[in-house]
Amino acid sequence: MTYCLAIALEQGLVFASDSRTRTDADQISTNSKMHCYGRAGERQLVLLTSGGLAVSQAVTTRLERDLETADLNLETVDSIGAAADYVGGLVRESRARHGNGPARFILGGQIGTGPAEIMLIYAEGNHITSSRETPYLQIGESKYGKPVLDRFLEPGLSLDQAARCAVVSMDSTMRSNSLVGPPLEILLYERDSLRVRHRLKLDEDSDYLRDLRRLWDSSLLTAFQSLLPIPESEITAADGTSEA
Amino acid sequence: MTYCLAIALEQGLVFASDSRTRTDADQISTNSKMHCYGRAGERQLVLLTSGGLAVSQAVTTRLERDLETADLNLETVDSIGAAADYVGGLVRESRARHGNGPARFILGGQIGTGPAEIMLIYAEGNHITSSRETPYLQIGESKYGKPVLDRFLEPGLSLDQAARCAVVSMDSTMRSNSLVGPPLEILLYERDSLRVRHRLKLDEDSDYLRDLRRLWDSSLLTAFQSLLPIPESEITAADGTSEA
Repeated sequence: MTYCLAIALEQGLVFASDSRTRTDADQISTNSKMHCYGRAGERQLVLLTSGGLAVSQAVTTRLERDLETADLNLETVDSIGAAADYVGGLVRESRARHGNGPARFILGGQIGTGPAEIMLIYAEGNHITSSRETPYLQIGESKYGKPVLDRFLEPGLSLDQAARCAVVSMDSTMRSNSLVGPPLEILLYERDSLRVRHRLKLDEDSDYLRDLRRLWDSSLLTAFQSLLPIPESEITAADGTSEA
Repeated sequence: MTYCLAIALEQGLVFASDSRTRTDADQISTNSKMHCYGRAGERQLVLLTSGGLAVSQAVTTRLERDLETADLNLETVDSIGAAADYVGGLVRESRARHGNGPARFILGGQIGTGPAEIMLIYAEGNHITSSRETPYLQIGESKYGKPVLDRFLEPGLSLDQAARCAVVSMDSTMRSNSLVGPPLEILLYERDSLRVRHRLKLDEDSDYLRDLRRLWDSSLLTAFQSLLPIPESEITAADGTSEA
């Protein structure tokens, strides 16, 4: 299982991914799902992968090879949309060759003076982007971590605020699905910088992750305890055969 | 879509359900998914339904009819487990007759001096119960509302605390899936009382639901703003062709 997330803000982009991979029912291992391509001052692209490892590795291997051998590659495409079309084509090809397993990718970044954007690429090779109303894209085990994104994310947040929100979303997901797991990788990209601002890896035992969890848990517990009690009300007669 | 939830505590049981029903792609309506059967001082049973309305209505109609005409019914079964077997049989029959659509039920309550229990009944008619480690059962759109349950629920909570947790879980789900919707129904059952303590319906515009949402939102926002900033770290060279 996988959980990856990208957020598009006025200030730039945030990417986050877990690293748990299951190659077989009883074989759990760790693989980075965050792949960076770029040339400082010129372009930065980040690819997040989900689905079968066979397809995602076929795609990333091909992306590397094309950089050396093909005219069309991540150093020659002239927009994030064109990059998503190109990656989408590779996903289609790889799935045709390696079986039509599930596969979804997020590709984001900025090329030259073009916009900083994020794209979700479907197994079929087509893609969608984010919006101001929903400034994020998710792949993999997306539901557990979605409520916290819906509550807090909006395009005006700072990169750092959005990254904290991404860590909380990741943490909620890891608690509810043990097939999503650390290390977490986080990447912050500042709009128009054409450089990666921050890339960090948070291991299970990282001080930051532990402190953030502890603080979040205790804040939520306080919030929970301060909720108003359920209103007293008349006992309603039960639907059934007799009064409850 | 549906989201229903039951919680088993030392003090008793809490049930919660939404009321949104989709009978067709463009036909959304409201139906209670919480059905109560009981006789004060003798037994109390609560059934929560999910899946196709055809199957769940066939089951509840049959439950009512059996109370009048059959020897085996919810007033004669002698344990919650036996009640779950009986309801499971009706689910199997109804699905065989009305098409094998999805259907999951939660049945809980207490009969005489037996234990107060909750059971999740699968479409195939078999069932499972809760545990001390996971003191709740969910049916329908369960993932969005699960993290908050995993954080807070434990068997020692009061009925009221668990009911607040259920409302927050419901609220998170309604925000993320518009096919889950109010009114919310909540039922509190105190162990060994053999009476419904509280049954209430929270409409979209209920003061309680609005106040709880506002308080929860503002507490979470405070919690979120107090999280530690992402640690500054060395910029790691990108995986790609060149330094980021």
